[in-house]
Amino acid sequence: MAKSLPVSPLAPERFPRVPPVRGARWASLPAGLRYRGRDDLMLLELAPGSSAAGVLTRSTTAGHPVLWCRAVLPRGKARAVIVNAGNANVFRGAEGDAAVRAEAEAVAAALGCAPEEVLVASTGVIGERLPVERITAKVPDLTEALRADGIEAAARAIMTTDTFPKGAFAAAEIDGAAVTIAGIAKGSGMIAPDMATMLAFVVTDAAIDPPALQALLAAGADRSFNAITVDSDTSTSDTLLLLATGAAGHRPVTAADDPRLAGFAEALDSVLLDLALQVVRDGEGAQKLISITVRGAGDAASARRIGLAIANSPLVKTAIAGGDANWGRVVMAVGKSGEPVDLGVLGVAFGGHAVARDGAAVADLDERPVAEHLRGREIAIDVTVGTGPGEARVWTCDLTHGYIDINADYRS
Amino acid sequence: MAKSLPVSPLAPERFPRVPPVRGARWASLPAGLRYRGRDDLMLLELAPGSSAAGVLTRSTTAGHPVLWCRAVLPRGKARAVIVNAGNANVFRGAEGDAAVRAEAEAVAAALGCAPEEVLVASTGVIGERLPVERITAKVPDLTEALRADGIEAAARAIMTTDTFPKGAFAAAEIDGAAVTIAGIAKGSGMIAPDMATMLAFVVTDAAIDPPALQALLAAGADRSFNAITVDSDTSTSDTLLLLATGAAGHRPVTAADDPRLAGFAEALDSVLLDLALQVVRDGEGAQKLISITVRGAGDAASARRIGLAIANSPLVKTAIAGGDANWGRVVMAVGKSGEPVDLGVLGVAFGGHAVARDGAAVADLDERPVAEHLRGREIAIDVTVGTGPGEARVWTCDLTHGYIDINADYRS
Repeated sequence: MAKSLPVSPLAPERFPRVPPVRGARWASLPAGLRYRGRDDLMLLELAPGSSAAGVLTRSTTAGHPVLWCRAVLPRGKARAVIVNAGNANVFRGAEGDAAVRAEAEAVAAALGCAPEEVLVASTGVIGERLPVERITAKVPDLTEALRADGIEAAARAIMTTDTFPKGAFAAAEIDGAAVTIAGIAKGSGMIAPDMATMLAFVVTDAAIDPPALQALLAAGADRSFNAITVDSDTSTSDTLLLLATGAAGHRPVTAADDPRLAGFAEALDSVLLDLALQVVRDGEGAQKLISITVRGAGDAASARRIGLAIANSPLVKTAIAGGDANWGRVVMAVGKSGEPVDLGVLGVAFGGHAVARDGAAVADLDERPVAEHLRGREIAIDVTVGTGPGEARVWTCDLTHGYIDINADYRS
Repeated sequence: MAKSLPVSPLAPERFPRVPPVRGARWASLPAGLRYRGRDDLMLLELAPGSSAAGVLTRSTTAGHPVLWCRAVLPRGKARAVIVNAGNANVFRGAEGDAAVRAEAEAVAAALGCAPEEVLVASTGVIGERLPVERITAKVPDLTEALRADGIEAAARAIMTTDTFPKGAFAAAEIDGAAVTIAGIAKGSGMIAPDMATMLAFVVTDAAIDPPALQALLAAGADRSFNAITVDSDTSTSDTLLLLATGAAGHRPVTAADDPRLAGFAEALDSVLLDLALQVVRDGEGAQKLISITVRGAGDAASARRIGLAIANSPLVKTAIAGGDANWGRVVMAVGKSGEPVDLGVLGVAFGGHAVARDGAAVADLDERPVAEHLRGREIAIDVTVGTGPGEARVWTCDLTHGYIDINADYRS
């Protein structure tokens, strides 16, 4: 059983005052799957006709809920999302698939929809049998408990080693109609791009057709959830869903490049990035949030790969944990990325203070402002790797004793 | 300055009694580059006509000695190798290149050879100026100190935060002539450091032409130094050299597939693997040596990528540190490799005890023998990923508080 962990020093002051999203209701309650004395089961109900989009782990050993979502998401419609914490329902063969179907059927029966309109996610221990009967038995109570303002409780119900619940929202306009975007996430371990033990559920009352919704989500995920890493490990269960109820009442949008979506896309990106950064802020053992900006690469993809090589380097992450302006390790990580680098231009700055420039250490560096920056909670590393147009930003956290404590001890 | 670290619990009992290798002499002495009270400079002298082969870091920010070796190694001949610890001579622009050349020229002048016949390696801090004048000033003393039996002292001279000197040897026969292979290495201990560097220097009195020697070394490195990982980071300075003096007197071998080399290749592999495993045994903070064997992959390369995905997983490494039979994390790491996997066959065993088999957890598992195995110093993880012919073995160590201590705290 996981021990109770102190709240991350990087946590926001409080859960935001998320307004209700028309057409979406949340419920949560304790199903006794693993934890005691807390909710571990969550239901999100969506108005009939809601559009659904998703970005799922690319793991080849993906969990049974992910396999289900991969199968039903192309339909583009959803009436509900059911999520449990404590057991990831991974690697259980036919029994695992049957458990997911049982969940979907129970929710479908309660809401009067098709099982394929119920999306499912699970997070927690891998390989143990999901006591699905405890979940299905709670579905009637869950549907009774649905509330428009249940989002914070839902965010708490999906936590595992998270030390704080994660929520975000933003407002936008489409065609003159006010729309709201609100989401929750859980994270912490196994966070890396394209694969993460990261769950996030975002709802909006905008009316957007599924293909357009999927395109918006995929683009936003690349700039947020796929630009963060905690420990380079990839979850079997990473699931990011975007649900659009259409209750805002504007004329439906059918194409992602529709100019009416400009403000919405920006608002969506801000919610996704907010949630993604909260995941990093709650990285296991995290004491510092690190943003890494790479400039001058051949293209944005190359810049991103260099950024992730730095963000995934245990030596960089431990240096930051120690408040050490160890730019040599940054140079090492740039080199291990395998990406083209112009050594005569290579430079590194911490908090805007250059420590290496044009391929050499800065002579007579005043280390005091650098050291002061590194004593802070939010660390900025800027790396110049050449003179190309490619630029990217990624985020990670430091690697501390806390990470070892949490992960050497998770199941015991 | 690096603190004195306790000797790794995984260290061999003592440095092996390495016999002299004809045509090779070693010298070491203190040059005061960073450490006090110990040797930090080493010279290996080779008989005229010696063949040289090398495997170097692929880092795009490789150090100046690596750039030099990349340039001169294709000549296939070497008369000497000079190595210092304490300063890696990386990221110093033209000054760094000039320092390497000065070292090569000083040794060449003392031994009466071309500078291009002198190979150079450095390990230690990145980005600081190498006080090369302290090295060149010591070259006359070094050549005076050359001894056939100087290998253990040389192994000590190249240590950084290694907690024990690393040496290995083996005997073989070529064409009826007895040949000896002997080598030293330093690894993932870090000097007050900017990174872990792996250096290894292996000599033999066999007579093998450079292209054949290079082929033998590349194949052996794939099964040894390229099959180990401590923290997934890649040094700017990794250098593995194989030097053949030809003093054994047999008819020279010109092709790597010459059947006369069968026994030699096996002996070479054993020396390379012995040295590589000593590097892992001295991994920063290592308390356990972990071997990971992957079977049933499409081919050996796929098996190796899966093995390295497991070996580089912080979640797997912390689980082993905690003595936790957390095979779910192994499954996660298999999935993140992106390699094809047959989920219906996937299995995991610890110490030969299956915990998951044919795509599911072993029912009614007796956890006691598994737990007992995980309490040991040497952990074996066997993973079956399908029914293909691909098999590979890789090695790593656990991830412990010691790693954080060494890497986050060094300036304090």
